[in-house]
Amino acid sequence: MVLIVGDGMGDRLVPSLNYKTPLQEASTPNLDEMARRGQTGLINVIAPGIPPGSDTAHISLFGLDPFLWYEGRGPFEAMGVGASLTKGDVALRGNFATVKEEGGKLIVVDRRAGRKVDEASELVEVLNEKLNEVDGVKVEFYHATEHRLAVVLRGEGLSDKVSDTDPHEVGKPVLESRPLEDTPEAKKTAEVLTKITFKSYEVLKDHPANKRRIEKGLPPANIVLLRGAGMLRKPLPTLQERIGVKAAAVGATALVLGVAKAVGMDLYTPPGATGGVDTDYKSKARKAVELLKDYDMVFVHLKGTDAASHDGLVEEKVRMIEALDYIAGYIMDYYDGEAVFVVTPDHATPVTVKEHTGDPVPSLLYAPTAIPDDTKEYNEISVAKGKLSGIRGMDLFNLMVNYANRAKKFGA
Amino acid sequence: MVLIVGDGMGDRLVPSLNYKTPLQEASTPNLDEMARRGQTGLINVIAPGIPPGSDTAHISLFGLDPFLWYEGRGPFEAMGVGASLTKGDVALRGNFATVKEEGGKLIVVDRRAGRKVDEASELVEVLNEKLNEVDGVKVEFYHATEHRLAVVLRGEGLSDKVSDTDPHEVGKPVLESRPLEDTPEAKKTAEVLTKITFKSYEVLKDHPANKRRIEKGLPPANIVLLRGAGMLRKPLPTLQERIGVKAAAVGATALVLGVAKAVGMDLYTPPGATGGVDTDYKSKARKAVELLKDYDMVFVHLKGTDAASHDGLVEEKVRMIEALDYIAGYIMDYYDGEAVFVVTPDHATPVTVKEHTGDPVPSLLYAPTAIPDDTKEYNEISVAKGKLSGIRGMDLFNLMVNYANRAKKFGA
Repeated sequence: MVLIVGDGMGDRLVPSLNYKTPLQEASTPNLDEMARRGQTGLINVIAPGIPPGSDTAHISLFGLDPFLWYEGRGPFEAMGVGASLTKGDVALRGNFATVKEEGGKLIVVDRRAGRKVDEASELVEVLNEKLNEVDGVKVEFYHATEHRLAVVLRGEGLSDKVSDTDPHEVGKPVLESRPLEDTPEAKKTAEVLTKITFKSYEVLKDHPANKRRIEKGLPPANIVLLRGAGMLRKPLPTLQERIGVKAAAVGATALVLGVAKAVGMDLYTPPGATGGVDTDYKSKARKAVELLKDYDMVFVHLKGTDAASHDGLVEEKVRMIEALDYIAGYIMDYYDGEAVFVVTPDHATPVTVKEHTGDPVPSLLYAPTAIPDDTKEYNEISVAKGKLSGIRGMDLFNLMVNYANRAKKFGA
Repeated sequence: MVLIVGDGMGDRLVPSLNYKTPLQEASTPNLDEMARRGQTGLINVIAPGIPPGSDTAHISLFGLDPFLWYEGRGPFEAMGVGASLTKGDVALRGNFATVKEEGGKLIVVDRRAGRKVDEASELVEVLNEKLNEVDGVKVEFYHATEHRLAVVLRGEGLSDKVSDTDPHEVGKPVLESRPLEDTPEAKKTAEVLTKITFKSYEVLKDHPANKRRIEKGLPPANIVLLRGAGMLRKPLPTLQERIGVKAAAVGATALVLGVAKAVGMDLYTPPGATGGVDTDYKSKARKAVELLKDYDMVFVHLKGTDAASHDGLVEEKVRMIEALDYIAGYIMDYYDGEAVFVVTPDHATPVTVKEHTGDPVPSLLYAPTAIPDDTKEYNEISVAKGKLSGIRGMDLFNLMVNYANRAKKFGA
């Protein structure tokens, strides 16, 4: 099984394309061929008219109902950068930031420490060494990209009902975390977060890496600001548990990889995969073919389509769609076995809107044994009358598993 | 956003129309144009084969699942005639009726006191003055139309598990309300209802308005019969809370206006709007255009299509459909901004059946940015292959909000 997701790939009629969609404009011989040989439709990844987040969309595309399973982005982001979470763990987003001491307070000078923090690995290492336990709670730091971190708290009696230590504004003092509900768990967790933040300053402020940054004229990454606490209350069932398949994810976007890990996929970010429009998509295609030797299911995620859409860059979007077509064609050409393919956006991000919308999105399923429909091309208009129209993201996943003859019977 | 509902507008093939539907028979140039430029389909307002009530249908058309939110018509009817209900209030439908004393009992002579009760305001005023509290429970009377009332009980420990004081039959004695479950709340509420009904006779029987009625040869409106107790347990979330929009309703039907009020719409009944086939539909169209200056969403309800259907009057129904077409065209012509339009029945009321049925109904969505389908006309047959086919009423609402770019993302 090969599941290829073009993030935000769905779109509307674009005036600058003579009222065509980017998918109509792009040259997609491989996707068109799959559409001709397979089944297509306009599907609702979550439900008609509901704009999906990248996290809820992928929960659905991995076969689970997001209304039942989604509890916030925090745990997924942490899993996407390497953390393994278990029930009751609290995950937060962290920033390396720059603060200065003023009147006995720490005042934020740059919430992102200049964004480019080449010393991040070094700094995360020292944090994990010196701040690995606070008040009996285990603390783990993970570097994501640039100034971004994930921070995980493990221990008994934690809560995610706590406020941020990140003041979200330059010139403001670093905050103490407050409990957002009157429970011992929230009180304790807030105290731990406050201590982590202020202790991170003690650990980082005189670190050699920061001395080097100051010498170079860069803002020192001298504190970790925390925000967006989330608790993993209900771990997602894994693909192994649900249908007995071994699955791998190829991508570079932490949030999406986190959902993939949460359903039990092994994560791969091949060299050159960036999550942006500059990604080395050929490297993803090669990795997918390689992984198909060892895995029953390979999920390939391309973020560039969404990145271009959020910036309103229609030509970039067309180019990224053609990259996705390349990936699909490469896997078809170079994988020796028979595979079931699904190609779908996770949601529409119309270049004219620059945000996720709840429009239905064009999807295709190509399986050697699935009866095709009459669709000849892959785009928002041509698939409208395809036989998959109206189904949800989770249905599309279940159909892929079904046509791979790996679906579990419900009932006797 | 403009949501136009033709109550009971959906239909079946009608023999007297040479097996066409009333929508096919009617001249609807404006609806046909919207269908050509927009998306259409046969939708299931509740679920396939389930005949919606006017209340459950509108809960769904306002974007909420009626299986989760519906708890009986009582609260909605009361809200539709002016009451503001809060959690725990019990609402009932009331009739002004005519009774006579016979053998120590009150026997029903006319359950509707001749239907036309011009003195209703006067009588409601005296009821609200003399019967505003019974056993510590606050009581409010609201006049709806003709003989119809809404009655609201407010106080601690009420129940809607109580039987009617209305015997539902002429010649029968007025009933005492009985508790329908063995709880102190039901017992207390039943006692209060019985007292309200019998005390209303004391208040009304010798009222000057009734003396005048008797002089004119009209049946006196000398009692209030109560039925259909309903409690507001779970207030509906408002549109303001859900999606941050300010909405207005234009109509004249208490039950439907009550649902509109329950989701936070402001209610408008323009001059001449009657809820019947004699309604001044042009007045509704003008009001809608006026309200679009101040509101993000305007809902226009036309009841005449349903009234004609219940009476089996096919020509009247065709005429009311043409009135709805006029409303849609007038708003398109006279509203200066860009609007997203939805036109839909709330259910079918086939003139050959004269009752609500669970047939799918033809709906259309016209939004400047939504990719159209191939439909050329608006009726039950022509929209069947449209891309909205198969969705629910709540989905249609969510799509309208989506294409107005006002939908909230689910997830991150």
